[in-house]
Amino acid sequence: MTRTAAIIGTGVIGAGWAARFLLNGWDVRLFDPDPEAPRKTRAVLENARHALPMLYDTTLPPEGRLTFCDIISQAVEDADWIQESIPERLVLKRKTFQKIQEHCHPDAVIASSTSGFKPSDLQGCAMRGGQIIVAHPFNPVYLLPLVELVTTDANPPALVARARETLRGLGMFPLRLRAEIDAHVADRLMEAVWREALWLVRDDIATTEEIDNAIRYGFGLRWAQMGLFETFRIAGGEAGMRHFLAQFGPCLQWPWTRLTDVPELTPELIDKIATQSDAQSGALTIRELERQRDDNLVAMLRALKTRDAAAGALIKTHEARLWPDRTTTPSPLITVRRTVPIDWTDYNGHMNESRYGQVFSDAADDVMIRIGADADYIAQGLSYFTVDIHIQFRAETHAGQMIRVETRVVEGAGKKLRLAHRMLDDESGALLAEAEQLLIHVSLKTRRACEPEPEIAARAAALAAQTGEE
Amino acid sequence: MTRTAAIIGTGVIGAGWAARFLLNGWDVRLFDPDPEAPRKTRAVLENARHALPMLYDTTLPPEGRLTFCDIISQAVEDADWIQESIPERLVLKRKTFQKIQEHCHPDAVIASSTSGFKPSDLQGCAMRGGQIIVAHPFNPVYLLPLVELVTTDANPPALVARARETLRGLGMFPLRLRAEIDAHVADRLMEAVWREALWLVRDDIATTEEIDNAIRYGFGLRWAQMGLFETFRIAGGEAGMRHFLAQFGPCLQWPWTRLTDVPELTPELIDKIATQSDAQSGALTIRELERQRDDNLVAMLRALKTRDAAAGALIKTHEARLWPDRTTTPSPLITVRRTVPIDWTDYNGHMNESRYGQVFSDAADDVMIRIGADADYIAQGLSYFTVDIHIQFRAETHAGQMIRVETRVVEGAGKKLRLAHRMLDDESGALLAEAEQLLIHVSLKTRRACEPEPEIAARAAALAAQTGEE
Repeated sequence: MTRTAAIIGTGVIGAGWAARFLLNGWDVRLFDPDPEAPRKTRAVLENARHALPMLYDTTLPPEGRLTFCDIISQAVEDADWIQESIPERLVLKRKTFQKIQEHCHPDAVIASSTSGFKPSDLQGCAMRGGQIIVAHPFNPVYLLPLVELVTTDANPPALVARARETLRGLGMFPLRLRAEIDAHVADRLMEAVWREALWLVRDDIATTEEIDNAIRYGFGLRWAQMGLFETFRIAGGEAGMRHFLAQFGPCLQWPWTRLTDVPELTPELIDKIATQSDAQSGALTIRELERQRDDNLVAMLRALKTRDAAAGALIKTHEARLWPDRTTTPSPLITVRRTVPIDWTDYNGHMNESRYGQVFSDAADDVMIRIGADADYIAQGLSYFTVDIHIQFRAETHAGQMIRVETRVVEGAGKKLRLAHRMLDDESGALLAEAEQLLIHVSLKTRRACEPEPEIAARAAALAAQTGEE
Repeated sequence: MTRTAAIIGTGVIGAGWAARFLLNGWDVRLFDPDPEAPRKTRAVLENARHALPMLYDTTLPPEGRLTFCDIISQAVEDADWIQESIPERLVLKRKTFQKIQEHCHPDAVIASSTSGFKPSDLQGCAMRGGQIIVAHPFNPVYLLPLVELVTTDANPPALVARARETLRGLGMFPLRLRAEIDAHVADRLMEAVWREALWLVRDDIATTEEIDNAIRYGFGLRWAQMGLFETFRIAGGEAGMRHFLAQFGPCLQWPWTRLTDVPELTPELIDKIATQSDAQSGALTIRELERQRDDNLVAMLRALKTRDAAAGALIKTHEARLWPDRTTTPSPLITVRRTVPIDWTDYNGHMNESRYGQVFSDAADDVMIRIGADADYIAQGLSYFTVDIHIQFRAETHAGQMIRVETRVVEGAGKKLRLAHRMLDDESGALLAEAEQLLIHVSLKTRRACEPEPEIAARAAALAAQTGEE
């Protein structure tokens, strides 16, 4: 059954939540008094529709329905999840919760995107404080998996469990804090860097661009995949974390940062930062920067997915739930349905030829899973290797295009599995490429050809009988 | 002419420098009083030989010669670059510089890897202070491009220019600080986060693993490609940096971080951190963690390279210098020589079939460049598209394997370019795959077949005449 999310406040964060829910199949109702809200939300949605489907090697569920509401009550009644992302003013938030709770179902989760307030601040004078939690996401909400989940003893454990499950179902990583604290965890870390960076700009040690380069060409690359402590553990060498602390602990007492003071944001300092930032990034509009950021994130996250590491492992886990049912045999047999990701294009501006091979390789994987030659079978030391493929390229394919592959099992006898693929534009049905592919069953121990298990052979033969005829 | 680097101190940083120089074709002389230094250095070198070549789609220059020296004088005499990476004690560093300067060439660059000291601290009582600079790298030195270059007025501009050029020649990004400051830029930012993170662990808000997840599933992914200011610029929306500062500036005054205090590293706190870190990462040895880190970095950096973005753009620039001369026609014509990168392998533990297609696509690119259908030609709106490829897979190929492709231009007439490729293990010459590939010359405006420019056609015909026969 389709579930409904109410998004209260549709700035960059609220609109990002709307996109995350919508593209994962939820119906979404939006409320924001800004008359520009629908336009702004659609701009964020357009970015999300471009980027999020590219993360996965299969399709997301069909998009839910999007409704703009004129009043809060209309948005929140019957909503399963209510996400508040209004400005960071406590009185305003408390008033909004009051309004929400007058109209929403008492079992709905009411989550605040607040960067700074503790959940107990928000629950304070609410009529049902136990319904309110903090679920603090990170921009772009539709791509970054982290969401800080902060609760209090007032929240029933069942509601907290449901909140975690919902966030996981959106492909996110709910990080539950052990105790509430102002600004949670991630923003405290960012704030510390932000303050130090402002000093460096103020004192003309480095410009905004130089500081960004110091991050993205160095420790930023380490942190994106391992974070801080695991990186430092490696720095400690075989002696480990204890040794690292003994060696580098004393630095804490050294004047390596501006510990005790906060730079004043004078008009001069604001002007300096804004001017430097214009020089660094002003050639591009925010829209263009967002698209660059998203495409870079997609490419990095997909790279981590090939390694089943860091945030890439989260995407892989979510993707496992997205695969269609493979126990039935539709006609024609559809072995791939997906969006072409940005990192598959080349200097000619279209999908590189080798990625056609990738698509047909994925199509063969689908056939293998259908005949039982799945991850468990491979773990037992048996698999199929491609020994011959002939690809005929019929049309160009572009990033963001939705494609599908229809596959016939032409031969499924003994060691041989012979497939005929047609890759099509999923919308128009236009032919993009055709391929004939021969796979041979192998032992992963000897790396030589061998007969498949009888059950696999039988299923291959059956699939050939069902799909082999043109 | 081969240049020589002297590496004084071969801990993780010194050995990383040794690997960076060596794999970029420099001769390297090492000095470290630790009798274990050769073994430890070789372990770092092994990691570097695994990872660094994978960044590039061509080969690095032949490795230089590695020599372990018993005395400093032997290491530094005739060295063009002397890199000091000894413990962070000023007296020790000053004594070492004295010893170095007694024996080195007065024109050599003497660079310190110091994390904390200013160059003026190091130049203080040296006999030739102007020869000494700070070049502070980041672990793993062989993979991360950032190096903070800090100089003083005592350093001659010509020496500073030479230092920058040398570091760029190693594929690094020298970030020159505008003024010297304790701990330079990046370590100050990291120190700010480290201190805040220690508070969060001490106060049981989050464990080491949870803090790492807060970084790597969220802002770490943003910072790895854009850094801090550009990310915040986007958060400010179309109104830009000035708006962001107006909106979020006040947070600086809020109690979002532990501003004024430093957590004391009591035995209890050290124990807590070490225990949490063991729980988080203790299942893997440091060696295994290093390999994971390096493979993740390679995959992320390669992903950024496909986008010509952030650190990936630096790698692309360096790679452009590494391509072999394509103006002559060796026999056989070698169109690809490279290491198989880690992100090309699949669940069968070998190079995925689609990456064979990638290699042959790259081989075709090489042929295109040789006949003049290069980036400039493509920018004019003309190119070749592959319309048909037939690949026969002969043997498995693995990450780290050095491969080459020998290509014959079977037909180079009119719109057609027909290639026959053989992919071989570069060492043994064993056949890994064969392919026949047909490309058609196209207009990128009409996206249809058209005749190539006469000069391109003539060069294609000539290359076919030279290489077409078996």
